[in-house]
Amino acid sequence: MRDTKIADLLQTEHLLQEYTVKGWVRAFRSNRFIALNDGSTLHNLQCVVDFDNTPEEVLKRINIGAAIAVKGELKESEGKGQRVEIDVKEIEILGEANPDEVKKTILQPKRHSLEKLREQAHLRVRTNTFGAIMRVRSKLSYAVHQYFNQKGFYYVNTPIITGSDAEGAGEMFKVTNFNLEDLPKTEDGKIDFKQDFFGKETNLTVSGQLEAEAYAMGLGQVYTFGPTFRAENSNTSRHLAEFWMIEPEMAFCDLDGNMDLAEEFIKYILNYVLENCDNDLEFLENRLIQEDKSKPEKDRAPMQLREKLRFITENNFKRVSYTEAIEILRNSKPNKKKKFDYVIEDWGADLQSEHERYLVEKHFKCPVILFDYPADIKAFYMRLNEDGKTVRAMDVLFPGIGEMVGGSQREERLDVLQAKMKELDVDEKELWWYLDTRKFGTCVHSGFGLGFERLVLFATGMSNIRDVIPFPRTPKNAEF
Amino acid sequence: MRDTKIADLLQTEHLLQEYTVKGWVRAFRSNRFIALNDGSTLHNLQCVVDFDNTPEEVLKRINIGAAIAVKGELKESEGKGQRVEIDVKEIEILGEANPDEVKKTILQPKRHSLEKLREQAHLRVRTNTFGAIMRVRSKLSYAVHQYFNQKGFYYVNTPIITGSDAEGAGEMFKVTNFNLEDLPKTEDGKIDFKQDFFGKETNLTVSGQLEAEAYAMGLGQVYTFGPTFRAENSNTSRHLAEFWMIEPEMAFCDLDGNMDLAEEFIKYILNYVLENCDNDLEFLENRLIQEDKSKPEKDRAPMQLREKLRFITENNFKRVSYTEAIEILRNSKPNKKKKFDYVIEDWGADLQSEHERYLVEKHFKCPVILFDYPADIKAFYMRLNEDGKTVRAMDVLFPGIGEMVGGSQREERLDVLQAKMKELDVDEKELWWYLDTRKFGTCVHSGFGLGFERLVLFATGMSNIRDVIPFPRTPKNAEF
Repeated sequence: MRDTKIADLLQTEHLLQEYTVKGWVRAFRSNRFIALNDGSTLHNLQCVVDFDNTPEEVLKRINIGAAIAVKGELKESEGKGQRVEIDVKEIEILGEANPDEVKKTILQPKRHSLEKLREQAHLRVRTNTFGAIMRVRSKLSYAVHQYFNQKGFYYVNTPIITGSDAEGAGEMFKVTNFNLEDLPKTEDGKIDFKQDFFGKETNLTVSGQLEAEAYAMGLGQVYTFGPTFRAENSNTSRHLAEFWMIEPEMAFCDLDGNMDLAEEFIKYILNYVLENCDNDLEFLENRLIQEDKSKPEKDRAPMQLREKLRFITENNFKRVSYTEAIEILRNSKPNKKKKFDYVIEDWGADLQSEHERYLVEKHFKCPVILFDYPADIKAFYMRLNEDGKTVRAMDVLFPGIGEMVGGSQREERLDVLQAKMKELDVDEKELWWYLDTRKFGTCVHSGFGLGFERLVLFATGMSNIRDVIPFPRTPKNAEF
Repeated sequence: MRDTKIADLLQTEHLLQEYTVKGWVRAFRSNRFIALNDGSTLHNLQCVVDFDNTPEEVLKRINIGAAIAVKGELKESEGKGQRVEIDVKEIEILGEANPDEVKKTILQPKRHSLEKLREQAHLRVRTNTFGAIMRVRSKLSYAVHQYFNQKGFYYVNTPIITGSDAEGAGEMFKVTNFNLEDLPKTEDGKIDFKQDFFGKETNLTVSGQLEAEAYAMGLGQVYTFGPTFRAENSNTSRHLAEFWMIEPEMAFCDLDGNMDLAEEFIKYILNYVLENCDNDLEFLENRLIQEDKSKPEKDRAPMQLREKLRFITENNFKRVSYTEAIEILRNSKPNKKKKFDYVIEDWGADLQSEHERYLVEKHFKCPVILFDYPADIKAFYMRLNEDGKTVRAMDVLFPGIGEMVGGSQREERLDVLQAKMKELDVDEKELWWYLDTRKFGTCVHSGFGLGFERLVLFATGMSNIRDVIPFPRTPKNAEF
């Protein structure tokens, strides 16, 4: 379908043959060496132009950003930095790039800030950094599907538009088909949502979990992987209004099985990128090393990127109860010296990223799974323990980032669930169908949620979540 | 993590060993034979209860819908209909199902209408039909990712919330964080969208194509697979307000390459389910055969389900220009006899499903790709041919359903694109970034869109699109 891809050419053993390659000019040195990139790989193909026999007319149109086709023989490279190169016989300019216009964009080859790159999110994928990030992101996605498929999980597309606002995971966006300038009213002056598209108020989902639970009660093991939304006005490097979430849900599985799955799953997908994205990871790793050079020593990354990924894939995850963790934290140096922003005093405190990172990075020196959290700081659907005050929740904690996964064994007992919903004012009428799953063959079941962008952030070593999704959605920003 | 899955047990060679199996009771005959299902496969495991040594107390709780665990030896079955069965030694009731309550639901084993099943979409996945549909759906999804990964495509998550309404593919839902009862106004009395979450009006996407094009200009070959939305008040068996779409986009690829890809892709994923979902397809095929028996002969399916899938995978797709197709249709019997609802008179007519099906089912007797459609009936971004009146569009036509895929080579020439946008009143300012892709190294590129539910409909033989997505969203319906 397409001509030869650069990723393939750079690896082929079939030299001294003629190939046609198409891509975009990344550099053009000495009117002779074109660095050509087609997106299939981080690496450019060196194309050696026959200066004397190429019309000046063509030479001056070989500008950075231009799309070109080159035809020529693939040879061992005499220069350094590449194994092979193309000896160009024919060259065609497919799409020009005016150098004066290019100068106004981030295609201009110089250091641009990540902020500036974000403003040109439609072009940033043509840079080495964003090409690498997006290839890693794609491979991580694939690994997710491959893992679950191998394990016999079925992929379920839970609804994006929901009539429920009971999920409780955060503030929701409203979805409507009304003309906002002319809202229909009921007799008593309220908005008449019966006349809206769905005949009631609707929102964008914050989680597919509840629907996935219903499906796990039929298919056994399922997972979602789709967009979720939060209308929270958080303008931070950790929050997006629109992000992708992975949520497996398993019937006949308790919290231990859930922890086993989370650990195995995360190791699998990170191993997958270690094995399949080495070029891109190496580039991103070097990028971080450069970045670190301008930082004071104490702010530098304690591990290099691939080392950090292997820290996850090669260590056993330490499983610790919340109660134990609180003891450790309470007696820790930073707590006693009040170095934490939030000093831990009593059992029941909600852990912050600084505490989670302390446990992983300083205390245990391995990934950690905390479990059996206080019921008061967790959601209504989590299974109550016999002690009556903790629930079978678990969080997987990573270095540098804190919580990577949050999950739980679900409350499968109808009466306990109903009591909890009443206590927290969750509307039973709205979740009638969810309660049904506890009426007809209820069973022990568990699942977790993993915010995909947070994982991509970890795997690429980027520090702002807006840089790991193609077109980020944040407060006051829905460009592109 | 879990105990043995029924899908594995039914295939294992390791008989005469003890297994623990958990699932839901589908039937309980003669106080002796439990048909147990755990969702891993269509088939039930026969569990033979030792009536004499099982307390009545337990026996009477083995009701349809109950979740149970059985432990016992796997043996060759003496009865018909199964190769193996479990000789139950221990049985545990995990979650009851009150028979009086079950009677009020579609779990009650009798024929329920599809409408009724839709009203209990949270339970219908426990029926044979919906278990089969959703397993096939999941496997189709997986095949999509596997195909594109193998071909070197990168998966791109284009935004769901969009500030653009220029995509032109249909009516859009609005997304807002406003309190609709108290909308902020500007001085001149209009709604002040600057105060909304994103600082402007936003909608739910109708397509990720334009963003995917921008990404193809960096990564070369990309695809999207995500939810898209239409706020059209179409209460038909073919329309959903929320559905999943697959959209590949390829740089340096013309319409021929696009047709090659579409054909290869569709064959790959249908072959995948033929190879990996035979049980489920067989069940769905028999369901259709039963259904057909109650129909007059002329309304019966001309091909059985798997035969119909092989009709796609084993035939070459016939490629025909729109102009040729119009000639064929104009001279066809149903047109002359005015049997078509829409009689074809002139070149330029938009084809209906009845015409598309005629071409596939009666005239060519194979899948058909029509190309080079009149510009007037196609979107602004399709590449204009030299004739000035047709565009490089293509539709892939299937039996029984008509259009399955719609795609095009994209207009890569900036001036032609701008002229077209002006003509159709598409706002250049809003699509500044899209135009940029034509300014900096533009190139021939192509892509297509495939509505995933339409494919699942085809692969499962279902006739209402609401039955191939877990929780359908349609006018006046956003339940669950």
